[in-house]
Amino acid sequence: MLAFQVHNKKLVKIEKPVPKLRAGWALVRVRLAGICNTDIELLHGYYGFQGIPGHEFVGEVAEVEGPSATRKKWLGKRVCGEINISCAALGRRPVCDFCKKGLKSHCARRKVLGIIGHPGTYAEYVALPVENLHVVPNNVSDEEAVFVEPLAAACEILEQVEVRRFNTVAVLGDGKLAQLIARVLRTKIPRVVMYGKHENKLALAQKATILTKKVHGDASDLKRIKETFGLLVEATGSPSGLALAQQMTEPRGTLVLKSTFQGAAPVETWPIVVKEINVVGSRCGPFDKAIALLRSGKADPRPLITRSFPLRDAAKAIAFAQKPGVTKVLLNP
Amino acid sequence: MLAFQVHNKKLVKIEKPVPKLRAGWALVRVRLAGICNTDIELLHGYYGFQGIPGHEFVGEVAEVEGPSATRKKWLGKRVCGEINISCAALGRRPVCDFCKKGLKSHCARRKVLGIIGHPGTYAEYVALPVENLHVVPNNVSDEEAVFVEPLAAACEILEQVEVRRFNTVAVLGDGKLAQLIARVLRTKIPRVVMYGKHENKLALAQKATILTKKVHGDASDLKRIKETFGLLVEATGSPSGLALAQQMTEPRGTLVLKSTFQGAAPVETWPIVVKEINVVGSRCGPFDKAIALLRSGKADPRPLITRSFPLRDAAKAIAFAQKPGVTKVLLNP
Repeated sequence: MLAFQVHNKKLVKIEKPVPKLRAGWALVRVRLAGICNTDIELLHGYYGFQGIPGHEFVGEVAEVEGPSATRKKWLGKRVCGEINISCAALGRRPVCDFCKKGLKSHCARRKVLGIIGHPGTYAEYVALPVENLHVVPNNVSDEEAVFVEPLAAACEILEQVEVRRFNTVAVLGDGKLAQLIARVLRTKIPRVVMYGKHENKLALAQKATILTKKVHGDASDLKRIKETFGLLVEATGSPSGLALAQQMTEPRGTLVLKSTFQGAAPVETWPIVVKEINVVGSRCGPFDKAIALLRSGKADPRPLITRSFPLRDAAKAIAFAQKPGVTKVLLNP
Repeated sequence: MLAFQVHNKKLVKIEKPVPKLRAGWALVRVRLAGICNTDIELLHGYYGFQGIPGHEFVGEVAEVEGPSATRKKWLGKRVCGEINISCAALGRRPVCDFCKKGLKSHCARRKVLGIIGHPGTYAEYVALPVENLHVVPNNVSDEEAVFVEPLAAACEILEQVEVRRFNTVAVLGDGKLAQLIARVLRTKIPRVVMYGKHENKLALAQKATILTKKVHGDASDLKRIKETFGLLVEATGSPSGLALAQQMTEPRGTLVLKSTFQGAAPVETWPIVVKEINVVGSRCGPFDKAIALLRSGKADPRPLITRSFPLRDAAKAIAFAQKPGVTKVLLNP
């Protein structure tokens, strides 16, 4: 099959056999894959990643290794898939406490599709445990379903914070994840204010009834911005965002952190203590809630698609994804 | 009256008139004052502080400015006092939203006894609004009551976190505040483990049925320490403590921050996101709960007193308080 892998900070085209399956695993033919900022970080050498990147996808189950009931249940289904692969699904015994509790996203021995130790979706096929798969309903298009993984990450905030207590929320950042977060919060909170530095991205948010404010994205914002919020989500993807986020959070407020940049962020953390801020780290989220949201039509991610590329042009696509003003770029095998 | 003030990083003896009182304020004759690490930071020039430091005290009400009922209620009473002075008590109108909600510790226009804009307790007398005062019960000695302020800060954790959900908790740090925190948590949690670098301070904790582990207090701890906790309190007073605290907090765990050091802490915050840690900033706490705890005898802070000095030797006392192995130092006017 055709695939692309990260090698010495380049995305290189390869031919390799389709993945072999363990018992309880499925082979999924990728219909669409999304390019995430994490993929770009992997390409730039973070985490020392060397394999096939990509973890956002919608596909079709092409093969299942398992009992006939399992095969019958999944074969031919249109699916998306959770990215954390539990130690149980990897055949490790005894199964860890987190996996026993169903928290495979926190299993210390997990592999992560296209990020940690498991080949990703910049390929014609991927292998995943069937426990990771979710059927995509008929009224949800491929172009919507490819957003399920990042949309689930946005929905995670609703699992962690009682957002209905708030009439207003700030989202710092105007990138792909920030856009989805703002849309998800907008389904529960009347006033969502996005602080971003890109005119065209803020314009996208405005079309989804999100208020916007332009920032410079540097230290000057700290002097200029005086507003504070009881609930704020930091999704700038930049270490400098945290200092501004702390400043903009009210005493006793809640600050949700979504940015997973690597590299030391020289941030003074004393405002967290002095203002008694509640900082909530937030990562992967519930696929079922994200799918339900797409099904309801309450949050439409499709305006975020800037362009689609054929899989064979993946190297061009990831270069394009890094251009200013670009939001979601898709790969079409 | 005799007092000491910070001037060019020195503690200088002065004579000055006793404070004049506003309506609703009391003059308190200090019976005992405690030296806190914050005082030492003020002395070293942090916050550009230049006045009379000190915010831990027990005293006796010597004068009250107000109606005779208020005078009668307070005159002669043995008291300790909350350190945050609300905009309402300062005569500012309109009163801010935080003060209206009774959250004067988060009033943006607050003054803070011996820390921000209001002369502190390294003196024979202090002035405070009567709304800040709490009567000390007869069965609580001066040597116990002088700990009410930092003990209240320790009790704040119980207001913020449902600690009874946990069978075990780690406290990072073995200083004065960490010692009080461990004692407060030990009243609710069977297993409290203190990580500290001073043998004699860890020995003090052991006498209060707190388990202890010796650490080096540097980056080598990050490699060596493998334990993780669902609940952890960072009270090292050092920026390097936060990195270790993040590492030692379980996925989905709660990390309480108590250290209010100034100066950039070059800490990578991505573990908060990846492990979905809940970080709880925690500062001043409820005096009534601290007094009740002292009254119950369940947490005895007196073993933490290393030595008392007469007020006239305050400069010697604050030098002594910075020596290795020293815990609480008191000033006796």
